Amino acid sequence: MSDFLFKRMTLIGIGLLGSSIALAARQKGLVEHIAIHTRSQATLARAEELSLGDSYHKDVADSVKDADLVIVCTPVGACEAVAKAIAPYLAEGAIVTDVGSVKASIIRQMQPYLPKTVHFIPGHPIAGTEQSGPDSGFAELFINRWCILTPPEGTDAAAVDKLAQFWTVLGSNVETMDANHHDHVLAITSHLPHLIAYNIVGTASDLEMVTNSEVIKYSAGGFRDSTRLAASDPTMWRDVFLHNKEATLEMLGRFTEDLTALQRAIRWGDGDTLYELFSRTRSIRRSIIDAGQEVDASDFGRHIVEGGETRAEQLKSDDHKDTGS
Amino acid sequence: MSDFLFKRMTLIGIGLLGSSIALAARQKGLVEHIAIHTRSQATLARAEELSLGDSYHKDVADSVKDADLVIVCTPVGACEAVAKAIAPYLAEGAIVTDVGSVKASIIRQMQPYLPKTVHFIPGHPIAGTEQSGPDSGFAELFINRWCILTPPEGTDAAAVDKLAQFWTVLGSNVETMDANHHDHVLAITSHLPHLIAYNIVGTASDLEMVTNSEVIKYSAGGFRDSTRLAASDPTMWRDVFLHNKEATLEMLGRFTEDLTALQRAIRWGDGDTLYELFSRTRSIRRSIIDAGQEVDASDFGRHIVEGGETRAEQLKSDDHKDTGS
Repeated sequence: MSDFLFKRMTLIGIGLLGSSIALAARQKGLVEHIAIHTRSQATLARAEELSLGDSYHKDVADSVKDADLVIVCTPVGACEAVAKAIAPYLAEGAIVTDVGSVKASIIRQMQPYLPKTVHFIPGHPIAGTEQSGPDSGFAELFINRWCILTPPEGTDAAAVDKLAQFWTVLGSNVETMDANHHDHVLAITSHLPHLIAYNIVGTASDLEMVTNSEVIKYSAGGFRDSTRLAASDPTMWRDVFLHNKEATLEMLGRFTEDLTALQRAIRWGDGDTLYELFSRTRSIRRSIIDAGQEVDASDFGRHIVEGGETRAEQLKSDDHKDTGS
Repeated sequence: MSDFLFKRMTLIGIGLLGSSIALAARQKGLVEHIAIHTRSQATLARAEELSLGDSYHKDVADSVKDADLVIVCTPVGACEAVAKAIAPYLAEGAIVTDVGSVKASIIRQMQPYLPKTVHFIPGHPIAGTEQSGPDSGFAELFINRWCILTPPEGTDAAAVDKLAQFWTVLGSNVETMDANHHDHVLAITSHLPHLIAYNIVGTASDLEMVTNSEVIKYSAGGFRDSTRLAASDPTMWRDVFLHNKEATLEMLGRFTEDLTALQRAIRWGDGDTLYELFSRTRSIRRSIIDAGQEVDASDFGRHIVEGGETRAEQLKSDDHKDTGS
C-alpha cells in the first residue's frame, strides 16, 4: 500500500514553478515518480544534474504515459501546442492541470484537444520570484500562498478535491473561482503591477538628462523596488499580456485615468487631492501584512537580510504611527 | 580637546530621518550635544522618551542657539517657515543643511532668509523606509547609501568638506551636484516610482469587479511590492510633488507615453515589442545589485526574513541564467 497521493507526476516545463513543485512534492512525499519534459535540451540536462525528477524525457508524449498527474509549467502561449501533443497519450482518469497566470485562455487553448477521459483542472499558484529557470526553484515557494483552481463546469468534484489536497500539502491555501474572474483579479494584483514596473524601468533607461549610471546609483530612493518585477522572465510575461488582453487593458485604462488626475493635481498644486490619496493607500499594506501575504518588517526586511542592524527587526509596522514632525 | 566633529547639532523635525541621524551621530561620536525641536508636542515628548537627544526645545529659535550644525528634517513644504524662524538666532559660521527630497525649492525657500554668516548647504541622503515618526529611525539607515549635497555657487569649500565628512562617518557616499540636476535625477529614481505606486494602490482600491479583500489576498502576484512605497508618509510626499513639479511632470509625461505604446502593443498582439522591453529591463536590476544598492537575494530576501527556507539564501542572481523551459 502506497501513501503517495499520485503515482506518477509529469512536469512539462521545469522553470521556477516546475522545479519548485518537483522539490516540494518530493519533500512532502506526495508522488512516487516525477517525470520531467522540457523543450530545451540544455534545461532538461540541468534538471537532471539537479536531480529534480526520476525520469527525463525528450519526447513530451513519452513523458505523460501512465501519469496520473500532469502539470503544464510552460509559458502560457505554449499550452495549446502542449495539449495537442499530449492528448493522445494521456492515461484515463489523469488530472491535467497547469500553473499559468491566465486561466480563460488556458481553457480555450487546451480543453478542445484534451480527451473527456481526463480531468482538466486549470490552476494558478500565486507564488514566484523574479528568478527563472530550473536552478531558481525551492520547496518552500508555495507555503502560505494562495493557489486558485478554475475547474470548468461539470468537472469531477473528487478530482478537484484531490488536486486541492496536493496544493494544500505543498503549503498553499486553495480557492476555486471562475476563470474570467480569476483573470480580472490577477490583472490588477499581478499583471498591471508587472507592466508598470517594466514600463518605468524602460522609461528610466531612455532618458537623456539623467544617465543610466545615475539611475542605478540613486535607485534606493524607490526605483529599485520596481526593478524586481521588471527582472521577471520576458517570455512568460509577454505571453501573459497577449493572453489576458481584455482584463489588462481594462485595468490599465483605469490606472491611466487615475494617474492623469494625479498629474493634473500636481500641475495645479492641488495638495489636498494628493494628500487624500497618499493617506488612504497606507492601510492596504497593513491589511496585506495582517493577511500573512507580506513580511512584517520595514523595507521588505532588506536591512535584516543585509545584517546591517538589529533595530529594524524590532520594527513592526503596527507598533508605529505616523507622528509627523 | 574634543574629538567631536560638531559641538552642537540641532535637528528640526524628528521623524524617520531626524531620529536616524540622532542615533547614528551619537553612535559614531560625531557630536557633543544633540538639540531637538519639532512642532508637535507629542512627537517631541516621544523623542525624549526614546532619549534621541540631549535637549528638547518647544521653541525652534531656542533650539538653534549656539549650534554649529543645524539639520532641517521637516517635510519640504515647511522649510521656508523654518528658515524665517531660525535666521535671527543662528550662530556665525554654523552649517545649515536639510534632508529634503527636492533641492531647488529648498534653496528658493531658505536662502533668501538665511544670514550670509552661515554656510547653507542643502543635502539629501538617498535613504529611507516606508515607516515614519521618531520610533522608526535606526543608526544604520545611511550605511552604503548615497548622500547628495547641492551647495549653491560660492559656498565655502571647507564647510562642504566638513558636512561631507559628517555623512561619510554615518556610512554614506557623498556626491555634490547642481540642485536642478538633483531634482531631475530624483524625479525618476524616487518621485515617479512613489507616484505610480500610490496610483496603482488607489486604482486597485476603487474597483467594482474585484473586491479589496481579493486584492489583499492575492497580492503576492506582484501588487504587494507597490504597497511599500505607497505606505510612505503622506505629508512628506505631498510636499515633494508640490515642490518638484516640473521635473515630475516631465518624467510622468515620458512614462505615460511609453505606457501608451505598451498598451497599443497589447491591444494589437505585438509580442515582439513586449518581449524587447521585458528583456532589456532585466539587466538594470543586476547593475543595481552590483552597485551595492540592492540586496543580492531573490524576492528582496523575503524568504530569508520569513525563515521559511535555506535554498533562497544560496540563490545569487548572477549564478542563474534564464534557461527557459
